[in-house]
Amino acid sequence: MPRNAGFILATRPSREQPAGPHNFRLVESETGELAEGEVLVRNHFLSLDPYMRGRMNDAPSYAAPQALGEVMTGGTVGEVVATRNARHGLGEFVSLTGGWQLHSKSNGRDLRKIDVKALRAGMQIQAYLGALGMPGVTAWHGLNKIIAPKSGETVVVSAATGAVGSIAGQLAKIAGVRVVGIAGGAEKCAYARDELGFDECVDHRSPDFAGDMKAALPKGIDGLFENVGAAPFAQSMRRLNPFARIAICGLVASGYDGTPTALPDVRVLLEKRASMTGFIVSDHLDEWPQALRELGEQARAGRLKWRESIAEGLEAAPAAFFSMLKGGNFGKQLVKLI
Amino acid sequence: MPRNAGFILATRPSREQPAGPHNFRLVESETGELAEGEVLVRNHFLSLDPYMRGRMNDAPSYAAPQALGEVMTGGTVGEVVATRNARHGLGEFVSLTGGWQLHSKSNGRDLRKIDVKALRAGMQIQAYLGALGMPGVTAWHGLNKIIAPKSGETVVVSAATGAVGSIAGQLAKIAGVRVVGIAGGAEKCAYARDELGFDECVDHRSPDFAGDMKAALPKGIDGLFENVGAAPFAQSMRRLNPFARIAICGLVASGYDGTPTALPDVRVLLEKRASMTGFIVSDHLDEWPQALRELGEQARAGRLKWRESIAEGLEAAPAAFFSMLKGGNFGKQLVKLI
Repeated sequence: MPRNAGFILATRPSREQPAGPHNFRLVESETGELAEGEVLVRNHFLSLDPYMRGRMNDAPSYAAPQALGEVMTGGTVGEVVATRNARHGLGEFVSLTGGWQLHSKSNGRDLRKIDVKALRAGMQIQAYLGALGMPGVTAWHGLNKIIAPKSGETVVVSAATGAVGSIAGQLAKIAGVRVVGIAGGAEKCAYARDELGFDECVDHRSPDFAGDMKAALPKGIDGLFENVGAAPFAQSMRRLNPFARIAICGLVASGYDGTPTALPDVRVLLEKRASMTGFIVSDHLDEWPQALRELGEQARAGRLKWRESIAEGLEAAPAAFFSMLKGGNFGKQLVKLI
Repeated sequence: MPRNAGFILATRPSREQPAGPHNFRLVESETGELAEGEVLVRNHFLSLDPYMRGRMNDAPSYAAPQALGEVMTGGTVGEVVATRNARHGLGEFVSLTGGWQLHSKSNGRDLRKIDVKALRAGMQIQAYLGALGMPGVTAWHGLNKIIAPKSGETVVVSAATGAVGSIAGQLAKIAGVRVVGIAGGAEKCAYARDELGFDECVDHRSPDFAGDMKAALPKGIDGLFENVGAAPFAQSMRRLNPFARIAICGLVASGYDGTPTALPDVRVLLEKRASMTGFIVSDHLDEWPQALRELGEQARAGRLKWRESIAEGLEAAPAAFFSMLKGGNFGKQLVKLI
């Protein structure tokens, strides 16, 4: 069997030493023999996602913290290169929770087969870590199940060009909604408008971000797909319409190392009769088949676009991860492992 | 026609001069002749409710501010003493938005007939300003439509002995839920436990309020019916279970004169996949018939209890109102006008 390499979580962030690449350590190992029912996957791409930052902490949260000394968790796509599982043959392409490593063993339960016909028709395998994977389903759930926009309404999406935000905004456009993105920098905003089809995109680095938000939202906000927190959240909360729905998908700008994102006066929810709902896509596994089917249809029809930031080689993963947390990526952050 | 007397809003609160009885002025007037379609109601009871404090301000909110120089808004119950409306006869008992005055003219659209059979059977007319009126429907909506408790869950109700909280808690008990109240003082807490049937009641004036909350909530909070804000809200937010539902009904302890109630870290909604929804019962007029029918059934069956604080005479209204905002009432705050 091939030798393996992967990043373990070696230490946890602390107040004295905030999170950084130093928390991870690259470890080589034997892959070892397969037990009955197991498969070995050669990972092609690793997905880097904001939720991983939370797992580095040893704090109570919705998921158990990442164990110290074990390979860091993460979604991957790859190819079955050895199998003792009758349901998964050699050469099969799969997505899985493969972790930050070159090879992953699986008992098959976390394997999701990737449609070979779609790959042959030109779909790139890493799409199953983005628009056609967890981030896509996240966008689908937050938009359809929490915001549930009606035609003619206005939806704001922060981190508009990110893996989740770009899909949420495009799904909202398909639903007949006015979509206003928030992104960091003119280049991302231009991409949101010109390529993704957002009606407007506001640069949160603008010196008059508040004024720009007001100008972009003459009819207020009916739905907010929140990925960022901090100033994008605060400014959006000032422009809510009655009965607004707020989906809290992520707060990447705050919370672990930085200032928490606060709601300074809960009364806004009362005055606007608004609702604010946090969600985690893994709570809604029953919706994944429908969501993936709809996302696949829209993608094949050319109505979903996305960008990727691809770091080359496993060794690049830690730096790429922390760069992404600061908005250094442009679209879905991936690591190419092969 | 009889002479009328009522309180107008004479001045608005300001930073220099916070809200108080000085903002109101008692004015006498002629009731005048009725136009075709109008009725004249002699009000028996005036309801004092926290929402009125918001109407005193000239700030954008869900309802238009109370106009200066006009009779202060408010729910009343009374008797038709003159009528030029074929659908409302002399001697009919009605509830209406009659305002802080002895007599109210109505074109009939805001009149709700009170069931004479229930009155004859012993129901007091002022119940239609409390458990069988707007506060009761408010409790019904927040509990059933937002919290939607499942048997065995834990629901916390703040202002547990108030007009809304007492009904919300009793409806939750009927639904098979563990109910923990929060109230100010040992007397109110004893009433919530011993008379209303709450499982526990925590005194928010206790020197160890946080510890008392922890002790009363060994299994956390699945539903929060929030009427108060401030410390009761803050302590409840520390004990949320996954998928908790929070109904923001009122924030009487904060917001206009005092410190706003903040949510210091929105991440709690994400980590708990919780939802927080503000609501106003007048947005849900379609639900009133069902709610009033169910409340009436429970009341007739003896499963709903309530208390009233009754101020005597119209002149007592302003002082009673501000006393209520500070928790000086015990149960539904009313003014007896006849």
